[in-house]
Amino acid sequence: MVALLQFRRCFMPSAQLYAVVFDAYGTLFDVHSAASTIERLFPGRGSQLSQLWRGKQLEYTFLRTIGERYVDFWSITESSLQYACDALMLPLDPGARHRLMQAYNELAPFAETMEVLLALRESQRHLAILSNGSPAMLRALVANAHMENLFTRVLSVDAVRQYKPAPAVYELASRCLDLPPQRIVFVSANGWDAAGAGWYGFRPYWVNRQAMPIERLDSPPRKTATTLKGLPEYLDQLEASQN
Amino acid sequence: MVALLQFRRCFMPSAQLYAVVFDAYGTLFDVHSAASTIERLFPGRGSQLSQLWRGKQLEYTFLRTIGERYVDFWSITESSLQYACDALMLPLDPGARHRLMQAYNELAPFAETMEVLLALRESQRHLAILSNGSPAMLRALVANAHMENLFTRVLSVDAVRQYKPAPAVYELASRCLDLPPQRIVFVSANGWDAAGAGWYGFRPYWVNRQAMPIERLDSPPRKTATTLKGLPEYLDQLEASQN
Repeated sequence: MVALLQFRRCFMPSAQLYAVVFDAYGTLFDVHSAASTIERLFPGRGSQLSQLWRGKQLEYTFLRTIGERYVDFWSITESSLQYACDALMLPLDPGARHRLMQAYNELAPFAETMEVLLALRESQRHLAILSNGSPAMLRALVANAHMENLFTRVLSVDAVRQYKPAPAVYELASRCLDLPPQRIVFVSANGWDAAGAGWYGFRPYWVNRQAMPIERLDSPPRKTATTLKGLPEYLDQLEASQN
Repeated sequence: MVALLQFRRCFMPSAQLYAVVFDAYGTLFDVHSAASTIERLFPGRGSQLSQLWRGKQLEYTFLRTIGERYVDFWSITESSLQYACDALMLPLDPGARHRLMQAYNELAPFAETMEVLLALRESQRHLAILSNGSPAMLRALVANAHMENLFTRVLSVDAVRQYKPAPAVYELASRCLDLPPQRIVFVSANGWDAAGAGWYGFRPYWVNRQAMPIERLDSPPRKTATTLKGLPEYLDQLEASQN
């Protein structure tokens, strides 16, 4: 089952030295998998709208965190969709808005996501999600992908009312998993999120799916890969080097 | 002379009800005026590199503020230049880096900037800059444009070690001008900066130079224009409506 989404201090017996905490959007789930829904509504604009929507969505999480004007990720996702449609001069009627927002709750996992999660679970590893998504969005996403039994915790930033890379967000995972930061391998496809996790003290594993340059934020990842596939082996090696 | 760049509480006799606080980059000075320098170094890539550099520069101010990892704007401008060159696979040797960074200290004012500032000064209005720029960058920028005598204060976020739209940044202007927020007309060409100023309680005047859609941040500007030209008249009307 999807575990408690709200923060609470909780004991977690650790079968292994390291727990694995995943970012959700862009890392486990493909934020651009909604492009086909967009394409049906706005032919020829799927990719462009999807990119602009995602970029503005992140910008709004940054601005609202700095400006101390938190609203949840559902609200931000709606506002950024509206902005992106305004910018491309696409009409967004209530029906289209509903379908696009719904598509965000049904984002597809990447091709390798499920097999990697299953492999990690088989080796008794504790897995968690730490995401900007609201609790309801994360519940929908995980249920839609039939991943209910895979995570020890599904944590939303909503508990601290700030977005990544606020230290309070990463602290939430550390506290709730009852593990010091250095025992958390944090997996993200967002270079800036990996950098933020590194600032906090996690071991960042950057899934550089889009062959982007490294972020110049003085916080390089411990490991860079192009997909999640090598993660189980990386963890095995990491454990072995500690024993 | 360029007034104190660091914060201090100071009494300012107010000739008029409202003071005018300007954003610098993109508002008074054209951040893309360095594109011609870029074009000479990297023919055909001036505009593209300039856009990417500016976008990443802002993103780094956001990320470092949220992540509590402040470095000054000179350092951020260098890092974001490096990232932009990495992304476009352009070689950045020390000479090119120096010339591009130097260009950032010599950004051109927009065509109407000087005449508007002079008109506002003629009516005894207090003018200030409140900018992400480091004190040294702002000094260079203002001196290069021969604007030393125009501003009551030139304020850098460096005094609070956070970037816009942190409330502490806007508070700096309010405190140093010794004016309540509602008596400050805040002029910015960055929609998100106008929104942040509005969150804080300033009266935002958005110079929408690039015909962008309004930001969906629940903080609409009090006034929107395409250049600075109408600002003196707006202020006169505002004062008149209060008397």
